[in-house]
Amino acid sequence: MLVLGIDPGSIYCGYGCIETDGKRIVHVTSGRISLSRSDPLAVRLKNLYSALNDVIAQYSPDVSAVEQVFFAKSVKSALSLGQARGVTLAAIAATGIPVYEYSALEVKKTVVGYGRAEKAQVQKMVTVLLGLKHKPGQDDADALAVAICHAHSRKGLKKVKGEE
Amino acid sequence: MLVLGIDPGSIYCGYGCIETDGKRIVHVTSGRISLSRSDPLAVRLKNLYSALNDVIAQYSPDVSAVEQVFFAKSVKSALSLGQARGVTLAAIAATGIPVYEYSALEVKKTVVGYGRAEKAQVQKMVTVLLGLKHKPGQDDADALAVAICHAHSRKGLKKVKGEE
Repeated sequence: MLVLGIDPGSIYCGYGCIETDGKRIVHVTSGRISLSRSDPLAVRLKNLYSALNDVIAQYSPDVSAVEQVFFAKSVKSALSLGQARGVTLAAIAATGIPVYEYSALEVKKTVVGYGRAEKAQVQKMVTVLLGLKHKPGQDDADALAVAICHAHSRKGLKKVKGEE
Repeated sequence: MLVLGIDPGSIYCGYGCIETDGKRIVHVTSGRISLSRSDPLAVRLKNLYSALNDVIAQYSPDVSAVEQVFFAKSVKSALSLGQARGVTLAAIAATGIPVYEYSALEVKKTVVGYGRAEKAQVQKMVTVLLGLKHKPGQDDADALAVAICHAHSRKGLKKVKGEE
């Protein structure tokens, strides 16, 4: 099963694809979509939508996982993050692959073993768990962490075993 | 020139299309897209994207106008509104028509003459300005108000006169 994790953002959107047989997880690809600050907002969001479509078309994941968001620094950053997140969810749903959402707490607990872990710890554990030679960028690592969280979750394991 | 105004929301998204020659404005259509609360968020956002595509395909507006958002009741509502707004902007930009944004203050000032006007006053003035027989719903009226604001703005008038 191929799991695509996504960490949406209004300027950088991390993505990470892993393969799992329910026991082992293997890194397939990861990177980040960069959106130009000089583009008008609507154009930036349109570009995010089509870049996500390209990633999905290229790797054909079976399922996707996106971090759930409950908090933001401010109303302004919540609006900005919400816009990128909305486009991300709509773009994935349009391809027909199921979308699962996990809280940051669940993701960190699964990957680091501690729900309040720092971003650098997530980055380090993703590198170890996937046996990567080079530490991935922070956005890529966050996206891979959500994918790993799904692979380890009850829903992800059920999917691999064909129970749902 | 056909102007499509949109009032994005996570459950109801108002839309309103008007025609203007730079002097008069005529009501073309208005309504609201209803999203099912029982659908998962990603499916709801995907449905919003495709419903907006349908409206644009049906009326072929030359330009669109969406309300700019700076404030929200809470971080939670900002995230929710941001998601619907992001999908709206991406869906319009994907069709290639230009998107203009106006603050609620600008919209109310143009339509009612007072930036702090109540929603009911906007609804009433939209009815009068467009010579409608029946008062449009609140979401439809808000969308028509943004379209009227664009038609009356410097950008809208320039467009009609072919200056840009």
